[in-house]
Amino acid sequence: MKAKIRILDVYTGRFTVVINENDAKKVKLHPEDLVKIESGKKTVYGDVVISNMVEEGEIGLSKDILQVHSFSQGEIVNIAPAGTPESIRYIKKKMHGEKLRKVEIESIIKDIVDRKLREIEISAFVTALEINGLDMDEIAALTVAMAETGDMLDIDRKPIMDVHSIGGVPGNKTNILVVPIVAAAGLTIPKTSSRAITSAAGTADVVEVLTNVSLSLDEIKRIVEKIGACLVWGGALNLAPADDITIKAERALSIDPRGLMLASIMSKKYAMGSQYILIDIPTGKGVKVETMEEARSLARDFIELGKRLGQYVEVAITYGGQPVGHTVGPALEAKEALQTLMTGKGPGSLVEKATGLAGILLEMGGVAPAGMGKKMAKEILESGKAYQKMREIIEEQGGNPDIKPEEIPIGDKTYTFTAPTSGYVTFIDNKAITGIARAAGAPEDKGAGLELYVKVGEKVKEGDPLFTIYAESEARLDQAIIYARRTEPIRIEGMVLQRIGNI
Amino acid sequence: MKAKIRILDVYTGRFTVVINENDAKKVKLHPEDLVKIESGKKTVYGDVVISNMVEEGEIGLSKDILQVHSFSQGEIVNIAPAGTPESIRYIKKKMHGEKLRKVEIESIIKDIVDRKLREIEISAFVTALEINGLDMDEIAALTVAMAETGDMLDIDRKPIMDVHSIGGVPGNKTNILVVPIVAAAGLTIPKTSSRAITSAAGTADVVEVLTNVSLSLDEIKRIVEKIGACLVWGGALNLAPADDITIKAERALSIDPRGLMLASIMSKKYAMGSQYILIDIPTGKGVKVETMEEARSLARDFIELGKRLGQYVEVAITYGGQPVGHTVGPALEAKEALQTLMTGKGPGSLVEKATGLAGILLEMGGVAPAGMGKKMAKEILESGKAYQKMREIIEEQGGNPDIKPEEIPIGDKTYTFTAPTSGYVTFIDNKAITGIARAAGAPEDKGAGLELYVKVGEKVKEGDPLFTIYAESEARLDQAIIYARRTEPIRIEGMVLQRIGNI
Repeated sequence: MKAKIRILDVYTGRFTVVINENDAKKVKLHPEDLVKIESGKKTVYGDVVISNMVEEGEIGLSKDILQVHSFSQGEIVNIAPAGTPESIRYIKKKMHGEKLRKVEIESIIKDIVDRKLREIEISAFVTALEINGLDMDEIAALTVAMAETGDMLDIDRKPIMDVHSIGGVPGNKTNILVVPIVAAAGLTIPKTSSRAITSAAGTADVVEVLTNVSLSLDEIKRIVEKIGACLVWGGALNLAPADDITIKAERALSIDPRGLMLASIMSKKYAMGSQYILIDIPTGKGVKVETMEEARSLARDFIELGKRLGQYVEVAITYGGQPVGHTVGPALEAKEALQTLMTGKGPGSLVEKATGLAGILLEMGGVAPAGMGKKMAKEILESGKAYQKMREIIEEQGGNPDIKPEEIPIGDKTYTFTAPTSGYVTFIDNKAITGIARAAGAPEDKGAGLELYVKVGEKVKEGDPLFTIYAESEARLDQAIIYARRTEPIRIEGMVLQRIGNI
Repeated sequence: MKAKIRILDVYTGRFTVVINENDAKKVKLHPEDLVKIESGKKTVYGDVVISNMVEEGEIGLSKDILQVHSFSQGEIVNIAPAGTPESIRYIKKKMHGEKLRKVEIESIIKDIVDRKLREIEISAFVTALEINGLDMDEIAALTVAMAETGDMLDIDRKPIMDVHSIGGVPGNKTNILVVPIVAAAGLTIPKTSSRAITSAAGTADVVEVLTNVSLSLDEIKRIVEKIGACLVWGGALNLAPADDITIKAERALSIDPRGLMLASIMSKKYAMGSQYILIDIPTGKGVKVETMEEARSLARDFIELGKRLGQYVEVAITYGGQPVGHTVGPALEAKEALQTLMTGKGPGSLVEKATGLAGILLEMGGVAPAGMGKKMAKEILESGKAYQKMREIIEEQGGNPDIKPEEIPIGDKTYTFTAPTSGYVTFIDNKAITGIARAAGAPEDKGAGLELYVKVGEKVKEGDPLFTIYAESEARLDQAIIYARRTEPIRIEGMVLQRIGNI
């Protein structure tokens, strides 16, 4: 059927096509049926909603479609019911525990990106992967398919370095130091990061306090070819778009099937043209990877997958048992990172981790001799060269390079928790710390978060400040205080933990 | 947040709640977030759509909500983000292969019915069941939970009989004969049926040609207490409503996990108060159950599940290798069933199957001595008593009891396929037959379908008519002809199937 496009002021979170009741009857369409809209060479798939808010002969498109495809008001298109996508058969094959062939994986990913597969099918795929897993052949095929169904970057510099932390540790602003250190040494590192999903601040959220992070691929190419680095938000790019769609199901179900996690990370590196990649796996209680065994097994998978993709991968298993540095929350973390870059000094955990990771990259990239990377990284940081590179990054991405740490606005509603007893800090609960920062408004409220005054192993006296919560509103501050009281973010115990009596 | 209800002329296939952009920002809601609407004692869950087609302080509700809950235009309600449903944890437990406890299953089913779980979670649940299965404890708990979250019938007659065919055979109008035969013998049989999902005609579609099938539970109670039987559409009732929701995911994925299939069937019988249930498992090529081993294993499950629910279940494994009777499609099947009831005679496959099943029920219900049921059923059919009961059913359900088979309107666009060669009918392809009837317009076009002139094993001469397609429009007829030419619905072969030469 021919129909005239009407663009609707509606965001549904999906590709919604609104059809008049009489038209729907004529073409035998029901709510949630899959339809295809053809216009010239373009075919776009969407979900039917039936309503008389559009006239007969008209179809309404939700703005979600317009964010990806261009249609103009009044444009005449062809609309027809879409058949069942072939790729559902391959999803069922995986349900039944069979190995998928490359073309089958490509078909699933293409149909996800084309929106021919929708929530039901995508959720079934993700669930089947969680239960039945993928082998390395399948993961490699998935990675390439995810990359190739999106945009890819081709930077005219070699070698291309990259670093990725699989996350989970609160306060992990490390890569904001690693990138300028590595670039200051003359290497190329086009770093994309994500925003917080379940954490209090993703690297992109933190960098955004200092400069613009939503850049186009063309802008990134220009900047990276000029200064060797960027710190941008991957979500603004069309990198491995299937991942942005499947993540919705993974989040709703709070699952993260390993094969999909590997493909999700590595497809973006592949799309960015990265050749030497360092994966940081924080390991410890309350982060994604809790044991060394798990961390080592995951490391082997990353390295093996890299080999299949023609990438050289190294892995750093890092201590993830407590927050990195002293701050959690976008503005607080940006402040801490900037201060560390400016002065060359900062919290031990942050400086040690950043120079450790940067050092490995310097060795991988061949600019530091084996065993000398960390020392060289530390020199670059302390000399101010890393800060200088960071200023370039801030400026090229459209921010003010002269920004000072004390100019960064922090939430002015604060509350400080103190030690209820004297003793030693025996445990800091990552999940509780993240929960408090989020309750205070992070990551949406940039100025929200918390500052920690103690780390594990330190001795405290009754009444010593343990941490301060920052929020932008009293309501959020109260929520965070309530959250903090309900949990035990910092545990303090005497050295004698248990006394066994003489029976 | 307080908001004023606006009822929107929109069908989305889900519970959609439209929120103004500014309100959404204020309450931090995003498209597809789950929200709860509270009004008095009622709490209803829905999915967020963001649009300025509603004003600030207003929320729009899709008509889908109004089909289940009553809200009035302008009503003031409270709307708030809904937390993550607890039952997601139990879905994950099943993903990880663990056995679910009764309370966990109840929690999942309650959240499905309350719409707190949506497509992503329901699809994950269904997929996890397809892969990891359910044991009999879990199936029994699922069955009762599905029944008890919907309406239940309490008929003041004993014993309550029921019959259910698990389907898949084209032309299976058998139960339209079974029900009046059983009721004519004085037993009570409140039969609910479904409409076609993937077939060309469900029992409800066929009966609807003769009388109204959308009745309320109160009307059903009245009719069944008066005449001992009904033939209604289960979908018009709120029986085991979780099933209507999960079926959407099962259809999209074309899967039918056994535990869910058993619970889906038996929960409706449980809700109808059925005590003696006969399950018909058609077995053969091209139907749901293809082998006797499968059929026997399924039979054991039905019987075992019945025991857990306090129901006495018997199973008939029937021949499903070709269509039942000569017709496929709502009106054509209604005509054949009515004619058979009126004259007491009809196609062997139909009469044999109907009296066979009815006979078992007569013995189960204690009105026929063991081994005499089928003979008694045949007498009831031939005596016209079954037809008399059918007239009562048609009349009580609001139809015209005097309707004659020749008055039933059949599609007037026809095309007859003839035998391309002489030989024996060696195979009739159920799936192709269903496909042709659906291509011709069934089940929506009641008059569409086909009439078969031959059955497996019969001898045909070149040029003999094999089957006639009926359609209501030339376009649909053409589609059915094309479909028939692309498949091989009826295979004719000489008695010598292969000649091996002398090498």
